[in-house]
Amino acid sequence: MSLKNDLIIRAARGENTERTPVWVMRQAGRILKGYRQIRAQVSGFVELVKTPELAAEVTVQPVDLLGVDAAIIFSDILVIPEAMGLPYVMEEKKGPRFPQTVNRNDDLNKLSIAGEHELEYVMEAIRVAKQKLDGRVPLIGFTGAPWTLFCYMTEGKGSKTFSVPRKLLYSDPEFSHKLLDMITESTIRYLKGQIRAGADLVQIFDSWAGILPKPIYEAFSLKYIEKICQSISEVPVIVFAKDAYASRASLGKLSCDVIGLDWNMDIIESRKLIGPDKVLQGNLDPAVLYGSNKEIEKHTHRMLQEFGGIKHIANLGHGVYPDTDPDKVRFFIETVKNFSN
Amino acid sequence: MSLKNDLIIRAARGENTERTPVWVMRQAGRILKGYRQIRAQVSGFVELVKTPELAAEVTVQPVDLLGVDAAIIFSDILVIPEAMGLPYVMEEKKGPRFPQTVNRNDDLNKLSIAGEHELEYVMEAIRVAKQKLDGRVPLIGFTGAPWTLFCYMTEGKGSKTFSVPRKLLYSDPEFSHKLLDMITESTIRYLKGQIRAGADLVQIFDSWAGILPKPIYEAFSLKYIEKICQSISEVPVIVFAKDAYASRASLGKLSCDVIGLDWNMDIIESRKLIGPDKVLQGNLDPAVLYGSNKEIEKHTHRMLQEFGGIKHIANLGHGVYPDTDPDKVRFFIETVKNFSN
Repeated sequence: MSLKNDLIIRAARGENTERTPVWVMRQAGRILKGYRQIRAQVSGFVELVKTPELAAEVTVQPVDLLGVDAAIIFSDILVIPEAMGLPYVMEEKKGPRFPQTVNRNDDLNKLSIAGEHELEYVMEAIRVAKQKLDGRVPLIGFTGAPWTLFCYMTEGKGSKTFSVPRKLLYSDPEFSHKLLDMITESTIRYLKGQIRAGADLVQIFDSWAGILPKPIYEAFSLKYIEKICQSISEVPVIVFAKDAYASRASLGKLSCDVIGLDWNMDIIESRKLIGPDKVLQGNLDPAVLYGSNKEIEKHTHRMLQEFGGIKHIANLGHGVYPDTDPDKVRFFIETVKNFSN
Repeated sequence: MSLKNDLIIRAARGENTERTPVWVMRQAGRILKGYRQIRAQVSGFVELVKTPELAAEVTVQPVDLLGVDAAIIFSDILVIPEAMGLPYVMEEKKGPRFPQTVNRNDDLNKLSIAGEHELEYVMEAIRVAKQKLDGRVPLIGFTGAPWTLFCYMTEGKGSKTFSVPRKLLYSDPEFSHKLLDMITESTIRYLKGQIRAGADLVQIFDSWAGILPKPIYEAFSLKYIEKICQSISEVPVIVFAKDAYASRASLGKLSCDVIGLDWNMDIIESRKLIGPDKVLQGNLDPAVLYGSNKEIEKHTHRMLQEFGGIKHIANLGHGVYPDTDPDKVRFFIETVKNFSN
């Protein structure tokens, strides 16, 4: 099926586009009333993720309600650990928790390489979402980066310091590389499945990129992200490594198409470090959407000017905060659409 | 009283020293058995902070037990909000919580400028600690940066995103500046009191420097840190703005003596950005201390080589993790002491 709006795909490939495409991380979620209604129909977040018809419905909502140039499949980065053998629960206000964790070589026997077959419910959600989208905009698939998944699988929950996974990198690098390899292999199968099911682009989220010193980050995270990038040639690949300031020059060398910037990354400086080839995505401070329309316009214009209108996909610098007024999100999107350099 | 070991003061002033001085953030704390014993004698963390004799005792413990070149007064950054009129509680495993918060101009009437008089218990702890130290090593005083205290006073607790304070900066800059002014004025009085009580250096901790885009960080945080720095000329001032990657060049322009680097800040790049004048402090990844002695030695040597043996105070890049083996901390300290460039 041909796409009526393929702006983001052309932009992701580095082509000049008639205007800057825009979408918003976490656009399918709690900011929308329609999402909260569907969420109330199921027992919990994980059930919503596992119910393809509903997951597809919340995926498509922001296209009409917010006017974004892409949908992103409603899912969770933790489906991979679960498919590998570590189930998780999502605790209200607390976040994810893994009743069992992995910490040493013996634990790896509990795990298996997973992929599209174990995650058929995601594939089905993508197929249904593609039908519902009916070619209006492209659909983005996604996954967590191996390092970020490693953090949750070893720590068992969110953490300010993630000292368990960091300890493992220094105290048992052999185990660490083995587990990262298993996650990477699963992730490649999973992304290839998403693409076969219909994903038009894919994004890799490395949420915990910022907690490792540069040489350690490059050895234990970027190495595996690069392996994934090299395996995916079917569609454009976006890498969003939050807080990876020190490694921006290395991000510029990845075999991917687009690099996401968080809101703390200076745009001009990041372009210099990453080089002229990559498309950049981002990076408005999500907290700007708490301000007045005048403030939102001012900050959005400055952002667009700094990116210079080429090789840019507009977005926030992180997921939209759940208590953001959807009118403000719409205003941000309209501001991007109406802007011309 | 003259100091028997004044290495760190001379280093902080930019003088060449016979070796690199070393101390460890959070050295007075849970890693030490002696601390845990004293902590068990009181009802909670806040009571320990408010009992000068005991606070002084845990302050001095690491001098003998770890061999550090400085003590740092055992206290908490949240004593300032409490003295201004916002009491807090420290919840086991959850961290601090403020039953009341401030969010609008009217709330400011609940607060008053505070300082050494309201925080006499800290002054007394410093005086007792100085007696116990008996000139063996200098004593470091400290405070939270106004922006970091603003975060806790408005959000009411720790947070991954601190969206409440960030929202205020965009939605009510007038209120934000007023509150930051009050905190700054209190902090100056507090630090001057600490110096009168005997602090030989002071450190300003900006724990949440990393969550604001550069222009916002400079307008709402660095501006106030600079005001504090300009008011303190009696002793060397250390500024540790964790995650302030994008503002390192601006940190280099502060009227302070020492800039702390966290473990993600590349040493060579940071020196270039900050310039040749400032002394740098840091920055070993605290997770390295989970590794073998061989690993610790390797990473410590590399760090010392990159700092180049001048204008450097060795430290971790953040507080030592509570589950770190104190033998590993001692080994790190010995490794610094035995190193010669």
